Amino acid sequence: MINRLVENIKKTGAPIVVGLDPMLNYIPKQVQENAFEEFGETLEGAAEAVWQFNKEIVDKTCDLIPAVKPQIAMYEQFGLPGLAAFKKTADYCQEKGLVVIGDIKRGDIGSTSAAYAAGHIGKVQVGSKSYIPFGEDFITVNPYLGSDGINPFLKVCKEEKKGMFILVKTSNPSSGEFQDRLIDGRPLYELVGEKVAAWGEEAMGESYSYVGAVVGATYPEMGKTLRKIMPKAYILVPGYGAQGGKGKDLVHFFNEDGLGAIVNSSRGIIAAYKQEKYAKFGPEHFGDAARAAVEDMVSDIKGALETR
Amino acid sequence: MINRLVENIKKTGAPIVVGLDPMLNYIPKQVQENAFEEFGETLEGAAEAVWQFNKEIVDKTCDLIPAVKPQIAMYEQFGLPGLAAFKKTADYCQEKGLVVIGDIKRGDIGSTSAAYAAGHIGKVQVGSKSYIPFGEDFITVNPYLGSDGINPFLKVCKEEKKGMFILVKTSNPSSGEFQDRLIDGRPLYELVGEKVAAWGEEAMGESYSYVGAVVGATYPEMGKTLRKIMPKAYILVPGYGAQGGKGKDLVHFFNEDGLGAIVNSSRGIIAAYKQEKYAKFGPEHFGDAARAAVEDMVSDIKGALETR
Repeated sequence: MINRLVENIKKTGAPIVVGLDPMLNYIPKQVQENAFEEFGETLEGAAEAVWQFNKEIVDKTCDLIPAVKPQIAMYEQFGLPGLAAFKKTADYCQEKGLVVIGDIKRGDIGSTSAAYAAGHIGKVQVGSKSYIPFGEDFITVNPYLGSDGINPFLKVCKEEKKGMFILVKTSNPSSGEFQDRLIDGRPLYELVGEKVAAWGEEAMGESYSYVGAVVGATYPEMGKTLRKIMPKAYILVPGYGAQGGKGKDLVHFFNEDGLGAIVNSSRGIIAAYKQEKYAKFGPEHFGDAARAAVEDMVSDIKGALETR
Repeated sequence: MINRLVENIKKTGAPIVVGLDPMLNYIPKQVQENAFEEFGETLEGAAEAVWQFNKEIVDKTCDLIPAVKPQIAMYEQFGLPGLAAFKKTADYCQEKGLVVIGDIKRGDIGSTSAAYAAGHIGKVQVGSKSYIPFGEDFITVNPYLGSDGINPFLKVCKEEKKGMFILVKTSNPSSGEFQDRLIDGRPLYELVGEKVAAWGEEAMGESYSYVGAVVGATYPEMGKTLRKIMPKAYILVPGYGAQGGKGKDLVHFFNEDGLGAIVNSSRGIIAAYKQEKYAKFGPEHFGDAARAAVEDMVSDIKGALETR
């Protein structure tokens, strides 16, 4: 799947991923009202609004982008109907040729991690039959439990040719509380990065590993160091746009070949119509606003890469 | 909810929690076959088998125990039907007066953590209505992202009088890879423990905080230190039984009042009928085997606490 991600990135020329993290307040009133008319102000209604919103964003951007990253929390908050919308969204994006990165940040040990891996990137056996429960292409994974927590995911990545991005240095302001603490003179995130590189060696695609890393756009200097520590890891970079990261901050996350990183934007794309810059589209054309925001993001990052 | 957990523990005299982590291969053939007869060898069939299995375990043990801890991964692996069985199990346990600890190990930042908190221990707003999507009483949370990842859960804990157990030192063999690394001469898990104590001060119940910690039974010496660092935190202790922890290893996790810790056993209880010790019950009486295993576990821990 890492090979297909790289192919998709080369094909579109867009090292970006659209974060499908729909809060209800991002969704234009008319979309919500249509959904509530059919399903009432219920969890089903909310899930339908989310799905209709996602579908329009995907329809309007899928030719420009290689991948999407639905954040499962935004679906899980609407219970079972929400999770059904997560699956429907993932399936639809795959039909459209997009790589789906399930931002699930799971992490546990042994048979428990194995169960998450089966559920999200693998298959589960029921009697004589096997099923693909959620079927994302990549997932995000939390490393706090060490190798015991990673190995079951790694096994499924290899079996199914799927991938994962392991949290290394997250984009949030307090990420340093634990991640930056010095161990033998070096920050924890570097040690995690070294483990990511080691885990990744066991699962190589053509030029990059099935095992990638999450490193926030908000910490460009750390990104530079981590890029060197994990040369074969694709870096998923959150924190662009709404969280403050800019194109020029991102150049060090990429390798010389212009590959090796994929930058996420969620709010900045899916709720673009709420920004002054894209206000001309209006809430009724939120999909066109998202498309314009994608084009601007790609040109910002490409421009930064060309002038480095 | 921490007050009710403490009450339940005092009432039953059992500082234990039964881990409802049903792998299909724990579930006796007759239970699986009945479920598959009705729903086929499908995800729905697997979920029904899980639910029927859980119901029998709960019916046979609920008068002896204060709480259960369903591990959501074991349900999530069966997709949406599995998650429906998770909710059905949680609801049923609450009807029976048990405290439900959702072992979900979620952790993200800002609005994403807020969405998980709403989904699992809070409410979600849809138009003018509000819903309780999963409705556990406690959840487990991963601290790797720092305060930004914890505060949204803390807010909901306070609003809803719910609780959380934050991963501090996990029970698995490789937990030391990151958690034991020395920072200014002290292991990372101690720093996390200190933060747990600080977060917990903001959300105190009568004698213990809404904010607890996870510390593995397999590391009794570390448990002793962490007990002192977090005097007001309830400690959820996994790793008893099948993972190797014994009653005598557990005494230091408790305070002098005999409170402050709750010990989990999953496989050792729910699959007790597979052990030689409880083989006399046979797979058809797996619920009675679970009950006998609960009684033995309680007497092991009580015995250890009395002779310390």
